[in-house]
Amino acid sequence: MTVPDVHLRSAGTALPGEPVDNATLASHFGMSEQWEQWIDLFVGTRSRHLSTDLASGEPTCTLADLCAEAAAGALDAAGVTAADIDLVVLGTSTPDQLMPATVNVVADRLGIDGVAAYQLQSGCTGAVQAMDVATQLLRTGRHRTALILGGDVSRKFYDPGADLSSLPLEQVVHYVLFGDGAGAAVLSTEPGPGSVLIRHVFVRLVGKGRAPGQMLDWFGPADRHSDRPPAEEDYKAIERHVPGMALEVLDEVLAELEWKRDDVGFLLPPQLSGRMTDTIVDLLAVPTAREISFVRQTGNNGNATPFFQLRRALSQMSGGDRAVGVSIESSKWIKSGFAAEKP
Amino acid sequence: MTVPDVHLRSAGTALPGEPVDNATLASHFGMSEQWEQWIDLFVGTRSRHLSTDLASGEPTCTLADLCAEAAAGALDAAGVTAADIDLVVLGTSTPDQLMPATVNVVADRLGIDGVAAYQLQSGCTGAVQAMDVATQLLRTGRHRTALILGGDVSRKFYDPGADLSSLPLEQVVHYVLFGDGAGAAVLSTEPGPGSVLIRHVFVRLVGKGRAPGQMLDWFGPADRHSDRPPAEEDYKAIERHVPGMALEVLDEVLAELEWKRDDVGFLLPPQLSGRMTDTIVDLLAVPTAREISFVRQTGNNGNATPFFQLRRALSQMSGGDRAVGVSIESSKWIKSGFAAEKP
Repeated sequence: MTVPDVHLRSAGTALPGEPVDNATLASHFGMSEQWEQWIDLFVGTRSRHLSTDLASGEPTCTLADLCAEAAAGALDAAGVTAADIDLVVLGTSTPDQLMPATVNVVADRLGIDGVAAYQLQSGCTGAVQAMDVATQLLRTGRHRTALILGGDVSRKFYDPGADLSSLPLEQVVHYVLFGDGAGAAVLSTEPGPGSVLIRHVFVRLVGKGRAPGQMLDWFGPADRHSDRPPAEEDYKAIERHVPGMALEVLDEVLAELEWKRDDVGFLLPPQLSGRMTDTIVDLLAVPTAREISFVRQTGNNGNATPFFQLRRALSQMSGGDRAVGVSIESSKWIKSGFAAEKP
Repeated sequence: MTVPDVHLRSAGTALPGEPVDNATLASHFGMSEQWEQWIDLFVGTRSRHLSTDLASGEPTCTLADLCAEAAAGALDAAGVTAADIDLVVLGTSTPDQLMPATVNVVADRLGIDGVAAYQLQSGCTGAVQAMDVATQLLRTGRHRTALILGGDVSRKFYDPGADLSSLPLEQVVHYVLFGDGAGAAVLSTEPGPGSVLIRHVFVRLVGKGRAPGQMLDWFGPADRHSDRPPAEEDYKAIERHVPGMALEVLDEVLAELEWKRDDVGFLLPPQLSGRMTDTIVDLLAVPTAREISFVRQTGNNGNATPFFQLRRALSQMSGGDRAVGVSIESSKWIKSGFAAEKP
C-alpha cells in the first residue's frame, strides 16, 4: 500500500462577541488600575473574547456553537461539503457536556453523519492531538477527508460574580489569561487550491514523576458543595519548563525533517500569554521566521489557538514556504509539534 | 509499505470493592421491597460495584486507580512492560478531572513516558473507539505496542444522600443501571501466546437530526447552583433503537468479513441492563455463539464493559474461533463493533 500524503486544505476560526480588554475586566470585577497595569506589564494579554456576558452573567454561546461556526468556515474555504467529510476529530478541555460528546453535536449541526467522530480530552495540545490522530487515520487509507476541530469555552469556570480580590492568585490568572474560541481545519489525502502538506506531527507525554502544572476539575451533583479547588495553575512551573520544552519540540521537528533553522519561514509558537510567547520566541531563535501569534488579542483560547495561527499561515505561505508549530500542555506535561510545507 | 496485522494480546479488568446488590441499595436509600423487585424484574441487574462507600459517602477510588490496576493486569498477561508501550488510548465519559486528562495520570502511575497518550471522551462506545484509534495507529507502522483502556466512575453523580423517591425516574435509573470499573488491553503488531487477531473494528456516528438518548452534564464553580439536570436518560428511546442498531452492527461486521452467522463462536453484546442484553441477544440470533455478558453482576460499567468481555473471550477462544463485539452509545447515537479471530 502506498501511504498517502496529508494536505491541510483550510482553516476556520470563531470568537464569541467583542474583545474584553483589561480595563473592562478591572472595572467589572472592581479591581484597581494597578491590577490592570499588572496584566498589561507582566501578562502581556490585552484582551480576550468570552462566552459569558459579564453584565448579565448569562452564557452567550456554547463550544458547539463556536465549533460549528469555525467548521463552516473551514469547509467553505476548502471547497468541500459535509458529505465529503468521513472523519471528525475535536480536541477540547471544556466540552459542553460529558455526554453527548460535543464533537457529535457539532457533526449533527453540520449535517455530518455515518462517519467516525472522536473527541480528545486535552489541554493546550488538543489541536495538535486532533491533527495527529486525523493525519494517521488518513494515512491508513481508510479515510479521505477529515474535519479537525479545537476549542475551549471557560463559561463554567468564569463566574462574573467572583470576588477576584479574595481568590488565590492561581485561580485569578484564569480570569486574565484565558479566552474562549474555536477553530477548525480540513485535512485531506487530496490537495486543493492553497493547501499545504503536513510534513510531520507528533504528540509526546513527558509527565513521568512530575506534578501537574495545570489542573481543571469538574463537579457533579454529588459534590457540588465540595471545597476542592476547581482550577489551579502552577505559573512558576510553567514559566520554568515550557520554554525549554518548546525548544526541544522545535529541534525535534527540524531534526526529523532535516530542516535547518533558516528553512523555517513561519513560526507558530505556544500562546499562554503575551509575555510567555515573547520569551519562547526569543529562545527558539528562528530569526528568519515570521512569528504568528494572537495571544495578546484573543488571550490563550486553548485548543482553538493553533487554528488561528494556521489560518493566518495558510493565507501567507507561498510555494516552498515552511512552517513549524509548537504547543505545550502543562497539565501533565505534553510536548507537541507539527511542520507544514507549501508545495 | 506492508500494513501490519494488529493482535489483541491480553485484557485486564478492575472493579472497586464488593458487589452492591439490589437489597443493599434499597435498604440504603430507604426504598421499598417492591422497588427492589422492580429492579430484579424489569432491569435485570442484580449487583454493581461502586467507587463510593455508601455508608460514609466517601470515595474509595478514582478512575485512575482502577485503570492502573486493570492496565497492570493487561501488561502482565501480555508479557510486556511499561517500556514496551509506545501508545496509550483511554475511553471514558467520566474522567477524574478535565485536566490533566486521566490517561496521562495512569501512564505516570505505570511508568509509561515519552509516548503519545490520548483520551477519548465517550459513552458506551469508548472502549471500541480506543480500540479503533489504537488499531489504526498501529497499522500506520508508527507504533508497535499499544495499551488501550476504558472505564467509568460515577462517584460525582452518585450521591449516597440522594432521596431517590423524589427524583425523576430518568435520574433514578443511574443509581440502578450503572456500576464502576475499568478495563485494559494490549494491542500489538507482534502476536503473543494466546493472542487473537483484530479482524475488523469500526465506529460510526448516526446522530443526525436525532435527540440524544443519554445526557451527562458537568458543573464548574460558576454554575454550581445551576438547576440544570445533571444526568438524563431516555430509556424508551434506548429500548426502541439500541436493539436494531446492534443488529445492524453485527450484520455489517459479518458482511465486511464475509462471515456467516454460524461462524461466530463468541458474541459480546451491549451491556445496558440484564433485560436489554437478553432482548438484543435474542434479536441478533446467533444460536451457535457463546454469549459473554457481565451486566447482571457488574451493572453497566460503561467503557469498562468490553474489556470484561474480551478478557473472558481470550481465556476461552481456541484456534479458528471467531468473536464479534457490539457496543452502542445512545448519547448521540453511535454504532460500533469489532471482530477478532484466533489464528
